[in-house]
Amino acid sequence: MDASVKKIPLTIGSHSYNIVIGSEILSTIDFSSVMLSPDKTGYVVSERVWGLYRDYISQVFSVKDAGDFIVMNDGEENKNYRYAEQFFEWLLGKGFTRKSMLVAIGGGVVGDFAGYCAALFMRGIPVVHVPTTLLAMVDSSIGGKVAVNISAGKNIVGVFYQPAMVLSDVRFLATLPDGELKNGITETVKHALIGESSLLAMMLNHDLKSIKERDTLEEIIYLSAGFKAGVVCEDEKESGRRAILNFGHTIGHAIESVMEYRGISHGEAVAIGLKGAMEISREMGFITREDVSVFDECARRYELLNSEHRFDPADVIDHMKYDKKNYGGRINFVLLKSLGVPQFDCEVPEDVLKHVLSGL
Amino acid sequence: MDASVKKIPLTIGSHSYNIVIGSEILSTIDFSSVMLSPDKTGYVVSERVWGLYRDYISQVFSVKDAGDFIVMNDGEENKNYRYAEQFFEWLLGKGFTRKSMLVAIGGGVVGDFAGYCAALFMRGIPVVHVPTTLLAMVDSSIGGKVAVNISAGKNIVGVFYQPAMVLSDVRFLATLPDGELKNGITETVKHALIGESSLLAMMLNHDLKSIKERDTLEEIIYLSAGFKAGVVCEDEKESGRRAILNFGHTIGHAIESVMEYRGISHGEAVAIGLKGAMEISREMGFITREDVSVFDECARRYELLNSEHRFDPADVIDHMKYDKKNYGGRINFVLLKSLGVPQFDCEVPEDVLKHVLSGL
Repeated sequence: MDASVKKIPLTIGSHSYNIVIGSEILSTIDFSSVMLSPDKTGYVVSERVWGLYRDYISQVFSVKDAGDFIVMNDGEENKNYRYAEQFFEWLLGKGFTRKSMLVAIGGGVVGDFAGYCAALFMRGIPVVHVPTTLLAMVDSSIGGKVAVNISAGKNIVGVFYQPAMVLSDVRFLATLPDGELKNGITETVKHALIGESSLLAMMLNHDLKSIKERDTLEEIIYLSAGFKAGVVCEDEKESGRRAILNFGHTIGHAIESVMEYRGISHGEAVAIGLKGAMEISREMGFITREDVSVFDECARRYELLNSEHRFDPADVIDHMKYDKKNYGGRINFVLLKSLGVPQFDCEVPEDVLKHVLSGL
Repeated sequence: MDASVKKIPLTIGSHSYNIVIGSEILSTIDFSSVMLSPDKTGYVVSERVWGLYRDYISQVFSVKDAGDFIVMNDGEENKNYRYAEQFFEWLLGKGFTRKSMLVAIGGGVVGDFAGYCAALFMRGIPVVHVPTTLLAMVDSSIGGKVAVNISAGKNIVGVFYQPAMVLSDVRFLATLPDGELKNGITETVKHALIGESSLLAMMLNHDLKSIKERDTLEEIIYLSAGFKAGVVCEDEKESGRRAILNFGHTIGHAIESVMEYRGISHGEAVAIGLKGAMEISREMGFITREDVSVFDECARRYELLNSEHRFDPADVIDHMKYDKKNYGGRINFVLLKSLGVPQFDCEVPEDVLKHVLSGL
């Protein structure tokens, strides 16, 4: 393996694996550490990525084994319980067994979908994640949360299922649209604010242009994925501390929900949520105006806040109350006690909440 | 808890729970060991059991909390991926959250279905199994294998998911038809043959009539469930030794499959499979004719072998070859090296196989 390749080893429960980060690294990977000669390998590839990187992907993987490729449209609507059923039938039809494995090549939707299918097919076959978006590299491919949607709700059906390996090849980021890049940057900023201080220093030292440099991307992914991996290793099933990763997401999810997931990206909603969580933390007397300005500076550098999104604070609170019902009688916020020190399960008085939301 | 109640504590991975065995024990159980005040409890009850024990069940559980009851027809066709989707929608509609729990009251189908749904709903909520058939008490409720069927195959979609508790109340067995009882006895005999020698002694000391006595049933369930629990604790995900539990099942499953699951019970097919596995073990020179007669004596006492079932050995071998394809190029048999000492991953020459199958 190349010297410039970064590796994050992690152990969750009895399961150990590596997150590998580098450029053009797919061909350097020895899959035998994942599974000794799987009888079949299924590659689930995002349609967009297949269009852009078909040659790279098929050249790399056809060397290793024949494999079966399935190209999926990576719209959220395909991360679906019924579509997974079709995929199980496809796997059986192709002769996949419990000695087979899957490789997911794409963004969060593809990773979630293939991870879910790998977790459930014949009670679990290995899955290797090859995230191709910054968001997937720094966040969604790490931690083993996999789920699909049913008509009554998103991510309702799923499990915790750790991958056999995560391969983050920054080559894929060269063609990533700015909007997608920002989705990832927002989660990176979140990790920076809730405890990864080296990452925070880096984020305050770059901007939307300079961050696109390969070495910078690799370092940011390394720090961000490493931070999340550390949290997940401590608390895989979110019985406690893992909840800090929801920083900014209580408000963010409610906004997405109010806007019916249209006209706003996940990153934009979470950026507003982060701003809200910072302001609430300040109003509660935990952090200072200067602390809040650290987030503001990140938002400015990476153009994370889009002032065009308008929503009614009362609607957002209603949606959080619905969430509240889901978590036993109160809205549970993650706040910062100080910069880099998050606390979960915080209660926030409704007047503080209203006041902050009106100002967003 | 009553002194006559038997308890098997087990730890699988980081998860510890109890199998509790006794008579009329439902009301004596303190669910707080399972989950401190779930916000909702869903009772998934077999239609047959609900018809027979509605008063007992609702009296016991209505004391604890209101709960939501769902009665399901426990035919194998309902252990289905699509039906589970409907159940997830039902849970959401009733306001179930990740702080809720399920209780499965019924045979293997209900346990598998509710276990699968509990494993997947919001990435896992606790499930308590209340098995009501002997088969479920001695076998299917133990070990955390849960799965549903899709049109292309049985048990294709599932996970390993350990319950929060197993409550085996032998009161339910009073109304169990003999055919169902024998399904359980067959698995009990299997456990006896592959290592549980006290159980073997008991089985050779009773018959289909005397085994129905409550204390006897409790003891048999205790020994049989305890044996399986021990195997599962060593190897939850069947990467090795757990495979011994497939003793008699390679042939058994193939016979069920040849007969398209009609006109033969699982227990009858497995009993033929056990006979076959004993005979193969003898032909391979591992065990003696006297060892085989131990199984024959069990089969006689409990009327496990039904000579009316006729099948073509060539068909059965074909179906096993299909299985073989599923496990990497060969038929993997579990054989006895000696009575009580199973070995998995044994290869059997096809002529031995043909000869034995022709004699069944």
